[in-house]
Amino acid sequence: MRVFGIDCGTEITGYGVVEWNAAARDPHLVPIAAGGIRPPKKSGLPQRLAFVHAEIASLLQIHQPDVVSIEEVFYSVNAKSALKLGHVRGVALLAAANAGLPVAEYAPLTIKSTVTGYGLAQKEQVQFMIARLLGLAAAPEPADAADALAIAICHVHHAQTLARQSVSVI
Amino acid sequence: MRVFGIDCGTEITGYGVVEWNAAARDPHLVPIAAGGIRPPKKSGLPQRLAFVHAEIASLLQIHQPDVVSIEEVFYSVNAKSALKLGHVRGVALLAAANAGLPVAEYAPLTIKSTVTGYGLAQKEQVQFMIARLLGLAAAPEPADAADALAIAICHVHHAQTLARQSVSVI
Repeated sequence: MRVFGIDCGTEITGYGVVEWNAAARDPHLVPIAAGGIRPPKKSGLPQRLAFVHAEIASLLQIHQPDVVSIEEVFYSVNAKSALKLGHVRGVALLAAANAGLPVAEYAPLTIKSTVTGYGLAQKEQVQFMIARLLGLAAAPEPADAADALAIAICHVHHAQTLARQSVSVI
Repeated sequence: MRVFGIDCGTEITGYGVVEWNAAARDPHLVPIAAGGIRPPKKSGLPQRLAFVHAEIASLLQIHQPDVVSIEEVFYSVNAKSALKLGHVRGVALLAAANAGLPVAEYAPLTIKSTVTGYGLAQKEQVQFMIARLLGLAAAPEPADAADALAIAICHVHHAQTLARQSVSVI
Protein backbone atom coordinates (compact mmCIF):
# COMPACT_ATOMS: atom_id res chain seq x y z
CA MET A 1 0.00 0.00 0.00
CA ARG A 2 1.33 3.40 -1.01
CA VAL A 3 0.05 6.46 0.85
CA PHE A 4 0.36 10.10 -0.17
CA GLY A 5 0.21 12.40 2.87
CA ILE A 6 -0.59 16.10 2.49
CA ASP A 7 -0.02 18.78 5.10
CA CYS A 8 -1.84 21.83 3.74
CA GLY A 9 -0.49 25.27 4.54
CA THR A 10 -0.97 28.75 3.16
CA GLU A 11 2.77 29.27 2.60
CA ILE A 12 4.12 25.74 2.29
CA THR A 13 2.14 22.58 1.62
CA GLY A 14 4.09 19.51 2.66
CA TYR A 15 3.80 16.13 0.99
CA GLY A 16 5.18 12.76 1.95
CA VAL A 17 4.84 9.38 0.27
CA VAL A 18 5.38 6.11 2.12
CA GLU A 19 4.95 2.49 1.16
CA TRP A 20 3.99 -0.34 3.45
CA ASN A 21 5.12 -3.63 1.98
CA ALA A 22 2.65 -5.82 3.87
CA ALA A 23 3.48 -8.87 1.79
CA ALA A 24 7.16 -8.87 2.76
CA ARG A 25 8.49 -11.32 5.36
CA ASP A 26 9.51 -8.34 7.45
CA PRO A 27 6.86 -5.70 6.71
CA HIS A 28 8.17 -2.18 7.18
CA LEU A 29 7.64 1.38 6.03
CA VAL A 30 9.61 2.56 3.01
CA PRO A 31 10.05 6.30 2.40
CA ILE A 32 9.36 7.13 -1.23
CA ALA A 33 9.39 10.93 -1.43
CA ALA A 34 8.79 14.06 0.62
CA GLY A 35 9.03 17.77 0.12
CA GLY A 36 7.39 21.15 0.37
CA ILE A 37 5.31 22.92 -2.29
CA ARG A 38 5.95 26.66 -2.15
CA PRO A 39 3.81 28.77 -4.48
CA PRO A 40 5.48 32.00 -5.66
CA LYS A 41 4.89 34.58 -2.92
CA LYS A 42 4.28 37.45 -5.27
CA SER A 43 1.53 35.73 -7.25
CA GLY A 44 -2.14 36.38 -6.62
CA LEU A 45 -4.22 33.88 -4.67
CA PRO A 46 -5.80 32.15 -7.72
CA GLN A 47 -2.35 31.62 -9.27
CA ARG A 48 -0.94 30.32 -5.97
CA LEU A 49 -3.81 27.82 -5.74
CA ALA A 50 -3.24 26.78 -9.35
CA PHE A 51 0.44 26.19 -8.52
CA VAL A 52 -0.33 23.99 -5.51
CA HIS A 53 -3.01 22.07 -7.43
CA ALA A 54 -0.76 21.43 -10.43
CA GLU A 55 2.11 20.27 -8.18
CA ILE A 56 -0.07 17.85 -6.22
CA ALA A 57 -1.71 16.53 -9.41
CA SER A 58 1.74 15.97 -10.91
CA LEU A 59 3.09 14.26 -7.77
CA LEU A 60 0.07 11.94 -7.62
CA GLN A 61 0.72 11.06 -11.26
CA ILE A 62 4.40 10.37 -10.57
CA HIS A 63 4.04 8.40 -7.34
CA GLN A 64 0.77 6.55 -8.10
CA PRO A 65 -0.42 6.18 -4.49
CA ASP A 66 -3.38 4.00 -3.48
CA VAL A 67 -4.82 6.58 -1.12
CA VAL A 68 -4.41 10.19 -0.01
CA SER A 69 -4.17 11.01 3.70
CA ILE A 70 -4.85 14.51 4.98
CA GLU A 71 -5.06 16.26 8.32
CA GLU A 72 -8.33 17.47 9.80
CA VAL A 73 -8.26 21.17 10.53
CA PHE A 74 -8.19 22.55 14.04
CA TYR A 75 -11.33 24.57 14.53
CA SER A 76 -9.48 26.55 17.18
CA VAL A 77 -7.91 28.68 14.44
CA ASN A 78 -9.74 31.88 13.58
CA ALA A 79 -12.14 32.16 10.64
CA LYS A 80 -9.66 34.09 8.49
CA SER A 81 -6.97 31.42 8.83
CA ALA A 82 -9.55 28.65 8.34
CA LEU A 83 -10.71 30.27 5.10
CA LYS A 84 -7.14 30.61 3.79
CA LEU A 85 -6.34 27.03 4.70
CA GLY A 86 -9.67 25.94 3.21
CA HIS A 87 -8.66 27.34 -0.19
CA VAL A 88 -5.51 25.19 -0.25
CA ARG A 89 -7.28 22.16 1.19
CA GLY A 90 -9.99 22.49 -1.47
CA VAL A 91 -7.55 22.26 -4.37
CA ALA A 92 -5.66 19.40 -2.65
CA LEU A 93 -8.88 17.40 -2.24
CA LEU A 94 -9.79 18.21 -5.84
CA ALA A 95 -6.47 16.79 -7.07
CA ALA A 96 -7.15 13.58 -5.11
CA ALA A 97 -10.69 13.32 -6.49
CA ASN A 98 -9.57 13.95 -10.05
CA ALA A 99 -6.93 11.22 -9.66
CA GLY A 100 -9.72 8.88 -8.57
CA LEU A 101 -8.14 8.32 -5.15
CA PRO A 102 -9.91 7.78 -1.83
CA VAL A 103 -9.10 10.34 0.86
CA ALA A 104 -8.66 9.50 4.53
CA GLU A 105 -8.70 12.25 7.15
CA TYR A 106 -7.12 12.20 10.61
CA ALA A 107 -7.20 14.56 13.55
CA PRO A 108 -3.85 16.15 14.53
CA LEU A 109 -4.05 14.36 17.90
CA THR A 110 -4.49 10.99 16.19
CA ILE A 111 -1.55 11.64 13.89
CA LYS A 112 0.83 12.62 16.70
CA SER A 113 -0.41 9.83 18.90
CA THR A 114 0.09 7.25 16.13
CA VAL A 115 3.62 8.39 15.33
CA THR A 116 4.98 9.21 18.79
CA GLY A 117 2.57 7.47 21.15
CA TYR A 118 1.62 10.86 22.57
CA GLY A 119 -1.11 13.11 21.14
CA LEU A 120 0.43 16.33 22.37
CA ALA A 121 3.97 15.56 21.17
CA GLN A 122 6.21 18.46 20.21
CA LYS A 123 7.20 19.01 16.57
CA GLU A 124 10.75 17.76 17.31
CA GLN A 125 9.43 14.49 18.73
CA VAL A 126 7.35 13.94 15.60
CA GLN A 127 10.38 14.62 13.39
CA PHE A 128 12.58 12.29 15.47
CA MET A 129 10.04 9.47 15.20
CA ILE A 130 9.48 10.01 11.47
CA ALA A 131 13.22 9.60 10.85
CA ARG A 132 13.29 6.52 13.08
CA LEU A 133 10.22 4.84 11.57
CA LEU A 134 11.51 5.41 8.04
CA GLY A 135 15.15 4.48 8.79
CA LEU A 136 16.42 7.94 7.87
CA ALA A 137 19.37 9.76 9.47
CA ALA A 138 17.16 12.82 9.93
CA ALA A 139 13.60 13.88 9.17
CA PRO A 140 13.28 15.55 5.77
CA GLU A 141 13.06 19.31 5.46
CA PRO A 142 10.93 21.41 5.53
CA ALA A 143 9.04 20.48 8.71
CA ASP A 144 5.87 20.39 6.58
CA ALA A 145 7.32 17.41 4.65
CA ALA A 146 7.92 15.52 7.91
CA ASP A 147 4.36 16.37 9.00
CA ALA A 148 3.02 15.05 5.70
CA LEU A 149 4.97 11.79 6.22
CA ALA A 150 3.41 11.54 9.70
CA ILE A 151 -0.04 11.95 8.14
CA ALA A 152 0.75 9.22 5.60
CA ILE A 153 2.15 6.87 8.27
CA CYS A 154 -0.96 7.49 10.37
CA HIS A 155 -3.06 6.09 7.55
CA VAL A 156 -0.82 3.04 7.12
CA HIS A 157 -1.17 2.32 10.83
CA HIS A 158 -4.95 2.73 10.85
CA ALA A 159 -5.44 0.74 7.65
CA GLN A 160 -3.41 -2.09 9.24
CA THR A 161 -5.21 -1.86 12.55
CA LEU A 162 -8.63 -1.77 10.96
CA ALA A 163 -7.59 -4.78 8.90
CA ARG A 164 -10.71 -5.88 7.09
CA GLN A 165 -12.82 -3.03 8.42
CA SER A 166 -13.41 -0.19 6.00
CA VAL A 167 -11.21 2.82 6.59
CA SER A 168 -12.97 6.06 7.42
CA VAL A 169 -12.94 8.24 4.35
CA ILE A 170 -14.33 11.71 3.84
CA MET B 1 -17.08 43.41 -21.11
CA ARG B 2 -18.43 40.07 -19.95
CA VAL B 3 -18.30 39.26 -16.22
CA PHE B 4 -18.73 35.87 -14.57
CA GLY B 5 -19.95 36.25 -10.98
CA ILE B 6 -19.61 33.41 -8.49
CA ASP B 7 -21.42 33.13 -5.17
CA CYS B 8 -19.68 30.25 -3.39
CA GLY B 9 -21.68 28.09 -1.01
CA THR B 10 -21.25 24.70 0.57
CA GLU B 11 -24.60 23.42 -0.73
CA ILE B 12 -25.26 25.60 -3.77
CA THR B 13 -22.74 27.72 -5.66
CA GLY B 14 -24.49 30.39 -7.69
CA TYR B 15 -23.17 31.78 -10.96
CA GLY B 16 -24.31 34.68 -13.06
CA VAL B 17 -22.96 36.06 -16.32
CA VAL B 18 -23.63 39.62 -17.49
CA GLU B 19 -22.40 41.67 -20.40
CA TRP B 20 -21.89 45.40 -20.46
CA ASN B 21 -22.00 46.65 -24.03
CA ALA B 22 -20.04 49.86 -23.39
CA ALA B 23 -19.66 50.58 -27.12
CA ALA B 24 -23.42 50.72 -27.73
CA ARG B 25 -25.20 54.07 -28.12
CA ASP B 26 -27.29 53.14 -25.12
CA PRO B 27 -24.92 51.09 -22.90
CA HIS B 28 -26.79 48.67 -20.67
CA LEU B 29 -26.42 45.38 -18.87
CA VAL B 30 -27.37 42.22 -20.73
CA PRO B 31 -28.10 39.02 -18.77
CA ILE B 32 -26.32 36.07 -20.36
CA ALA B 33 -26.80 33.17 -17.97
CA ALA B 34 -27.39 32.35 -14.32
CA GLY B 35 -27.93 29.27 -12.23
CA GLY B 36 -26.98 27.20 -9.23
CA ILE B 37 -24.40 24.43 -9.07
CA ARG B 38 -25.55 21.69 -6.70
CA PRO B 39 -23.04 18.92 -6.08
CA PRO B 40 -24.64 15.54 -5.28
CA LYS B 41 -25.39 15.57 -1.55
CA LYS B 42 -24.42 11.97 -0.94
CA SER B 43 -20.95 12.29 -2.45
CA GLY B 44 -17.84 12.74 -0.33
CA LEU B 45 -16.25 16.18 0.00
CA PRO B 46 -13.50 15.61 -2.62
CA GLN B 47 -16.08 14.49 -5.19
CA ARG B 48 -18.35 17.43 -4.39
CA LEU B 49 -15.43 19.82 -4.92
CA ALA B 50 -14.55 18.08 -8.18
CA PHE B 51 -18.17 18.54 -9.30
CA VAL B 52 -18.21 22.27 -8.54
CA HIS B 53 -14.79 22.75 -10.15
CA ALA B 54 -15.75 20.91 -13.33
CA GLU B 55 -19.02 22.85 -13.63
CA ILE B 56 -17.34 26.23 -13.22
CA ALA B 57 -14.53 25.30 -15.62
CA SER B 58 -17.13 24.20 -18.16
CA LEU B 59 -19.24 27.37 -17.72
CA LEU B 60 -16.16 29.58 -18.14
CA GLN B 61 -15.38 27.70 -21.33
CA ILE B 62 -18.94 28.15 -22.63
CA HIS B 63 -19.44 31.80 -21.69
CA GLN B 64 -15.89 33.09 -22.31
CA PRO B 65 -15.96 35.95 -19.78
CA ASP B 66 -13.26 38.62 -19.55
CA VAL B 67 -13.10 38.53 -15.78
CA VAL B 68 -14.37 36.59 -12.78
CA SER B 69 -15.99 38.44 -9.87
CA ILE B 70 -16.28 36.83 -6.44
CA GLU B 71 -17.50 37.83 -3.01
CA GLU B 72 -15.13 38.39 -0.12
CA VAL B 73 -15.96 36.20 2.84
CA PHE B 74 -17.45 37.50 6.06
CA TYR B 75 -14.97 36.83 8.80
CA SER B 76 -17.85 36.89 11.23
CA VAL B 77 -18.68 33.30 10.33
CA ASN B 78 -17.15 30.63 12.52
CA ALA B 79 -13.96 28.80 11.62
CA LYS B 80 -15.77 25.61 10.66
CA SER B 81 -18.01 27.41 8.16
CA ALA B 82 -15.06 29.44 6.86
CA LEU B 83 -13.10 26.26 6.23
CA LYS B 84 -16.00 24.65 4.36
CA LEU B 85 -16.56 27.75 2.28
CA GLY B 86 -12.81 28.02 1.70
CA HIS B 87 -12.77 24.58 0.07
CA VAL B 88 -15.37 25.66 -2.50
CA ARG B 89 -13.80 29.06 -2.97
CA GLY B 90 -10.42 27.43 -3.55
CA VAL B 91 -11.66 25.31 -6.45
CA ALA B 92 -13.60 28.27 -7.90
CA LEU B 93 -10.48 30.48 -7.86
CA LEU B 94 -8.51 27.59 -9.36
CA ALA B 95 -10.97 27.33 -12.26
CA ALA B 96 -10.56 31.08 -12.90
CA ALA B 97 -6.75 30.85 -12.76
CA ASN B 98 -6.66 27.83 -15.07
CA ALA B 99 -8.86 29.71 -17.54
CA GLY B 100 -6.31 32.54 -17.44
CA LEU B 101 -8.88 35.01 -16.12
CA PRO B 102 -8.31 37.89 -13.70
CA VAL B 103 -10.34 37.71 -10.48
CA ALA B 104 -11.91 40.73 -8.79
CA GLU B 105 -13.15 40.47 -5.22
CA TYR B 106 -15.81 42.61 -3.52
CA ALA B 107 -17.06 42.87 0.04
CA PRO B 108 -20.72 41.92 0.60
CA LEU B 109 -21.43 45.49 1.68
CA THR B 110 -19.98 46.87 -1.55
CA ILE B 111 -22.02 44.44 -3.65
CA LYS B 112 -25.32 45.27 -1.97
CA SER B 113 -24.54 48.96 -1.96
CA THR B 114 -23.72 48.91 -5.68
CA VAL B 115 -26.86 47.05 -6.67
CA THR B 116 -29.42 48.59 -4.30
CA GLY B 117 -27.75 51.77 -3.07
CA TYR B 118 -27.84 50.38 0.46
CA GLY B 119 -25.10 48.15 1.95
CA LEU B 120 -27.41 46.41 4.39
CA ALA B 121 -30.17 45.68 1.88
CA GLN B 122 -32.33 42.59 2.42
CA LYS B 123 -32.07 39.63 0.04
CA GLU B 124 -35.45 40.52 -1.51
CA GLN B 125 -34.29 44.05 -2.32
CA VAL B 126 -31.19 42.66 -4.05
CA GLN B 127 -33.35 40.26 -6.08
CA PHE B 128 -35.77 43.05 -7.03
CA MET B 129 -32.95 45.29 -8.23
CA ILE B 130 -31.21 42.47 -10.12
CA ALA B 131 -34.41 41.84 -12.10
CA ARG B 132 -34.83 45.55 -12.72
CA LEU B 133 -31.21 46.20 -13.77
CA LEU B 134 -31.27 43.26 -16.16
CA GLY B 135 -34.74 43.92 -17.53
CA LEU B 136 -36.11 40.60 -16.28
CA ALA B 137 -39.64 39.94 -15.03
CA ALA B 138 -38.19 38.32 -11.92
CA ALA B 139 -34.77 37.52 -10.46
CA PRO B 140 -33.55 34.07 -11.48
CA GLU B 141 -33.76 31.15 -9.07
CA PRO B 142 -32.10 29.98 -6.89
CA ALA B 143 -31.31 33.05 -4.77
CA ASP B 144 -27.62 32.13 -5.16
CA ALA B 145 -27.88 32.80 -8.90
CA ALA B 146 -29.30 36.29 -8.23
CA ASP B 147 -26.49 36.89 -5.73
CA ALA B 148 -23.94 35.84 -8.33
CA LEU B 149 -25.46 38.28 -10.83
CA ALA B 150 -25.18 41.02 -8.18
CA ILE B 151 -21.48 40.15 -7.74
CA ALA B 152 -20.97 40.34 -11.52
CA ILE B 153 -22.86 43.65 -11.82
CA CYS B 154 -20.80 45.05 -8.95
CA HIS B 155 -17.68 44.45 -11.02
CA VAL B 156 -19.17 46.08 -14.12
CA HIS B 157 -20.02 49.13 -12.05
CA HIS B 158 -16.58 49.38 -10.47
CA ALA B 159 -14.75 48.75 -13.71
CA GLN B 160 -16.77 51.60 -15.27
CA THR B 161 -16.27 53.90 -12.32
CA LEU B 162 -12.56 53.23 -12.14
CA ALA B 163 -12.43 53.89 -15.88
CA ARG B 164 -8.76 53.92 -16.73
CA GLN B 165 -7.62 53.04 -13.25
CA SER B 166 -6.64 49.41 -12.73
CA VAL B 167 -9.30 47.32 -11.06
CA SER B 168 -8.41 45.76 -7.73
CA VAL B 169 -7.71 42.11 -8.31
CA ILE B 170 -6.71 39.42 -5.84
